[in-house]
Amino acid sequence: MATASNEAHHPVDPGISKLQFAPFNSALDAGFWHELTQKKLNEYRLDETPKVIKGYYYNGDPLGLPARLTLEFSAFDMNASIPARCCPAFGTLYNTNTFETFKSCDKKSLLEKEANEIWQSIKSGAALENPMLLNRFLLLTFADLKKYHFYYWFCYPALCFPDGIHIIQKPACLGDRFSLNQIQALQKAYDDLCQTEGVTALPYFLIKYHDNSVVISLLKKWDSFFQDQEGKVTVGVYDPCNLSHYPGWPLRNFLILAAHKWGSVLQTVEVLCFRDRTMQGVRDITHSIIFEIKLPQRAFGQDCPKAVGWEKNQKGGMGPRMVNLSECMDPKRLAESSVDLNLKLMCWRLVPTLDLEKIVSAKCLLLGAGTLGCSVARTLMGWGVRKITFVDNARISYSNPVRQPLYEFEDCLSGGKPKALAAADRLQKIFPGVNSEGYNMSIPMPGHPVNFSEVTMAQARKDVATLEELIDAHDVVFLLMDTRESRWLPAVIAASKRKLVINAALGFDTFVVMRHGLKKPKQQESGDSCFSNTSSSSDLLGSSLFSNIPGYKLGCYFCNDVVAPGDSTRDRTLDQQCTVSRPGLAMIAGALAVELMVSVLQHPEGGYAVASSSDDRMNEPPTSLGLVPHQIRGFLSRFDNVLPVSLAFDKCTACSPKVLVQEKYSVLFCLWLRF
Amino acid sequence: MATASNEAHHPVDPGISKLQFAPFNSALDAGFWHELTQKKLNEYRLDETPKVIKGYYYNGDPLGLPARLTLEFSAFDMNASIPARCCPAFGTLYNTNTFETFKSCDKKSLLEKEANEIWQSIKSGAALENPMLLNRFLLLTFADLKKYHFYYWFCYPALCFPDGIHIIQKPACLGDRFSLNQIQALQKAYDDLCQTEGVTALPYFLIKYHDNSVVISLLKKWDSFFQDQEGKVTVGVYDPCNLSHYPGWPLRNFLILAAHKWGSVLQTVEVLCFRDRTMQGVRDITHSIIFEIKLPQRAFGQDCPKAVGWEKNQKGGMGPRMVNLSECMDPKRLAESSVDLNLKLMCWRLVPTLDLEKIVSAKCLLLGAGTLGCSVARTLMGWGVRKITFVDNARISYSNPVRQPLYEFEDCLSGGKPKALAAADRLQKIFPGVNSEGYNMSIPMPGHPVNFSEVTMAQARKDVATLEELIDAHDVVFLLMDTRESRWLPAVIAASKRKLVINAALGFDTFVVMRHGLKKPKQQESGDSCFSNTSSSSDLLGSSLFSNIPGYKLGCYFCNDVVAPGDSTRDRTLDQQCTVSRPGLAMIAGALAVELMVSVLQHPEGGYAVASSSDDRMNEPPTSLGLVPHQIRGFLSRFDNVLPVSLAFDKCTACSPKVLVQEKYSVLFCLWLRF
Repeated sequence: MATASNEAHHPVDPGISKLQFAPFNSALDAGFWHELTQKKLNEYRLDETPKVIKGYYYNGDPLGLPARLTLEFSAFDMNASIPARCCPAFGTLYNTNTFETFKSCDKKSLLEKEANEIWQSIKSGAALENPMLLNRFLLLTFADLKKYHFYYWFCYPALCFPDGIHIIQKPACLGDRFSLNQIQALQKAYDDLCQTEGVTALPYFLIKYHDNSVVISLLKKWDSFFQDQEGKVTVGVYDPCNLSHYPGWPLRNFLILAAHKWGSVLQTVEVLCFRDRTMQGVRDITHSIIFEIKLPQRAFGQDCPKAVGWEKNQKGGMGPRMVNLSECMDPKRLAESSVDLNLKLMCWRLVPTLDLEKIVSAKCLLLGAGTLGCSVARTLMGWGVRKITFVDNARISYSNPVRQPLYEFEDCLSGGKPKALAAADRLQKIFPGVNSEGYNMSIPMPGHPVNFSEVTMAQARKDVATLEELIDAHDVVFLLMDTRESRWLPAVIAASKRKLVINAALGFDTFVVMRHGLKKPKQQESGDSCFSNTSSSSDLLGSSLFSNIPGYKLGCYFCNDVVAPGDSTRDRTLDQQCTVSRPGLAMIAGALAVELMVSVLQHPEGGYAVASSSDDRMNEPPTSLGLVPHQIRGFLSRFDNVLPVSLAFDKCTACSPKVLVQEKYSVLFCLWLRF
Repeated sequence: MATASNEAHHPVDPGISKLQFAPFNSALDAGFWHELTQKKLNEYRLDETPKVIKGYYYNGDPLGLPARLTLEFSAFDMNASIPARCCPAFGTLYNTNTFETFKSCDKKSLLEKEANEIWQSIKSGAALENPMLLNRFLLLTFADLKKYHFYYWFCYPALCFPDGIHIIQKPACLGDRFSLNQIQALQKAYDDLCQTEGVTALPYFLIKYHDNSVVISLLKKWDSFFQDQEGKVTVGVYDPCNLSHYPGWPLRNFLILAAHKWGSVLQTVEVLCFRDRTMQGVRDITHSIIFEIKLPQRAFGQDCPKAVGWEKNQKGGMGPRMVNLSECMDPKRLAESSVDLNLKLMCWRLVPTLDLEKIVSAKCLLLGAGTLGCSVARTLMGWGVRKITFVDNARISYSNPVRQPLYEFEDCLSGGKPKALAAADRLQKIFPGVNSEGYNMSIPMPGHPVNFSEVTMAQARKDVATLEELIDAHDVVFLLMDTRESRWLPAVIAASKRKLVINAALGFDTFVVMRHGLKKPKQQESGDSCFSNTSSSSDLLGSSLFSNIPGYKLGCYFCNDVVAPGDSTRDRTLDQQCTVSRPGLAMIAGALAVELMVSVLQHPEGGYAVASSSDDRMNEPPTSLGLVPHQIRGFLSRFDNVLPVSLAFDKCTACSPKVLVQEKYSVLFCLWLRF
């Protein structure tokens, strides 16, 4: 516990009686760091300008505890109430963005700036009116939010007398000087004044005492209070220190004020360090100390005196402290805020207009949990999407884990876990904050051989109903299956329900990623044919036929087909069945499918946004994230992507009005089955 | 156990004594399916033409075991030896590529074709010369190598007598008809003939016996053997059946041969079903059976008789059987062959010229196990790469798992596991067949503050030495770090050692993936300046300045720099430090980095291949996988990639001759540190 003066430039000779002060220990609790983290993430971001914060010091500790300046959760709220027997103190927070800035910060100049403000408040009389101006602090921080390491350096600036302060009468216990009546009177007077002023504590005050009476008053009342005073003048300080021979830090600047204000008329001053505590249920101030000092006269001119105050670190040297909160925070919450941080960083500097909430809150349904499904889910997690649901009816086989990045060897044993369930479990293992579910079921497909027994038909009806409920409950439907025809029914249902559909399909070294055209809400349908191009003829001059096509006119995966979805698994050889593709392809297409979704969601018109084509690459992009294409067709052999745009086909088997008027999907589906 | 005749069209009336035959049970052991898998993967691929295979039937089972036609590991090796007391049988394997082909196969026509060949061999006399021609079988298979389910249908074609075969004298045990001397004489005569012929068993033979003697001979000796025979003629068949009243299946086609060949001169024939066994260590043939039948005369004309022989399935119906070997195979081996299958499928149909071995055997060193490192490793696994080594000095933090697809939440606890080790472990969990290692170490960087103590310098020297050893031990070096300057030393070492370097780096929504120029071997360096363009001036007309640049003239990551690698982490704000990028970007860039490596390795000149540029997208690609660019620069906001090409810079800090003459990297590195 440090009791030596911090006046580094004026080492104290213990032989002569100079007053020494017990410095503050900073007490920054986890709540403070948590709140700083939230402020940084949501409000300050990259803003490094100084912020006003509020701390307090407590008067009432048992002997042995160091005087503490406490910052807690409430430090950022200027209106937060102060606990009983605590005196507030206002400070300035310098939170840096980088550890380098933190380290290279000019601490001398920060201290001088703060000291000068104190000095100015003394000279101007502002501190007399508002003594809290003497109780200032500085806090320099760097929050490493990746590791939850908080670096900080605390400073409680104290102006210095060049030659120190000579003690005239050594500190004594109040009980040794005051009668019991006087002590009780002092306590009552203090409490009354606090109540009158409406504060929990008065940092400084004036005292007059006689045989049986004690009167106290505010600093600003000096002249009238001491008007008829003879002999010594007594001042009081609300003292957080509990050492019997030393006052705490708050007295320092007050003595500077006293010397500056009254040094010309007073030789000495008596100081009462008001100390409060409750022993065995009884309040007690008898351990307060009282002593007399010589008030330095004209010890300094108009210039601000030197100042000290940077706190020593735990090793006793001059240096910052570090708090590692990664261990004591709930790991799951840590993971959540870390994931948020990465995303928010994107907004702060790179894309300030990014509306993360639109992305994070998108409920995504992934039909297919194979190579594409796994890559899509991983990219969605990277974007912070919290609701991810898988549908698949396959089990994990031995060839899957090396290409399907949610599975491991162990998942293949004993016949293999169902993919949809294993994928949902894996997401939880990656990030416990995600809400993932898996449905181990087939997606009903037209054209595939079905045994028309009541049992199988009942199962098909049930599957159609489940699929419809799932599509209802999500915002974005990803079609990531390995057959064409399994994409049909979900495409129909999603089109009918106006859900954004993102479709991805792989060849050997080519892929297509597309958004389906998003049909207009029903009330808007009439009066605007989906299938006529509204562009005026002048639009067509010098621009592609497929420019300026709004989202509701865009085609779906089936619009270019001239046949109904057949059984594409029939007569496919093994290589076609397992959708052999270059291993990098699914990762690329899966990532692009999510990035396309994100770009669409960021567009003010969402799925109705006009489709960007390859020709638009030279133009100003429609959103801060760039183009909003209809399709991305990739050619890995040429490392090339093109962005085709195609119109909806009015006889499309999946999205034409004739198909979409069907309200009962199970009826529609059963019709398909029979033809 | 089936004892009824398979003559479906001629149901047997049990009242009249017609001969019935015990059919074969197919016995296809796991070794057979394993070998079929290997043949399919490495030899047959998509070839569906019929293959000759070899099985055998055993004579010597205890009573109660069905007669079996066994196919094992050796079935594909025509020179494989046949076990003792086993008679070989040759068959035709029809292995289909799809389950649909398997199911829709015309089994009637397959059987007729086979029956006709047997009939022709009977008519031509070939079967007399080589009786094995009567013992033919068919095997129709579909191997689902994803699930290790093997579907098969076995057929042992038997020609039919339209009216069956009448029994004249019912089967009796040989011990009841022959004296002990005769039995011993038969056994000796049979063994001697086998030995003379050099076979393990004779499927058919001729027998003459008298009071104390038995003589046997080959079928082709009929005329001379029976020249002076009077009365009945006896033939022998090596009989796998052990039922006391029925012969086994091999007798059927032999009786057809007998009727066709000798039906005009013989009314009846006596049949001895030679049965062998060892009872309590003593060989015994007394359980052989003997009976007499009426030999049908002119029962059929010149046309092939009807045939039967498709095996019933386990349920007793006509249908294929299925063997599920996924449970009984070693799961790790299953995983390995499943992974191989996917890759081989690519070759079989899509890229027959693909040299998978070059890819699978490439030893890859990944410097950096973050977002890029994880995606690169996953794509390498997809390509079957077996040796993957990570170097990283970071620990896994809470924000990592959602973007770094080798880590999970649990890896972040207690301060986080070291990335390099966790990544290597994860690869093993994904695929136990991979050889992955992790090195938790820093990559020495110039320009970063280093404390010049002996300890830190010794550590730096050690790290440089380890890095050099690692680069030596690998074929491809991936630079996947998040700072520029950490790429410098490995770039220098890899250039000096002529290792292929693949570099990937991310911005917010842009990336670069490139191969470094591969320096010529030292002996070739002189006489060809790396830095002069050898293209003639006519080449430059109508083509880019950067066309036809061979690999050894290409630049590295540092060639466009005009400054030495500095400390790029200094003064970066948080967003820059954590390399904030759109989440899909690392997956795309990581996948492309591996696909670029694969394309380079497939080029006959490897890293020396002429660089493809965007202009080459219209030209014939240099390899079956497509272009071999120098750089791929991607722009996610435009969903666009361009393929720039740049020349090596003769004053490059990483790959110029001046830097590369340094042989001692630790000396070079220490020089850097001091400047």
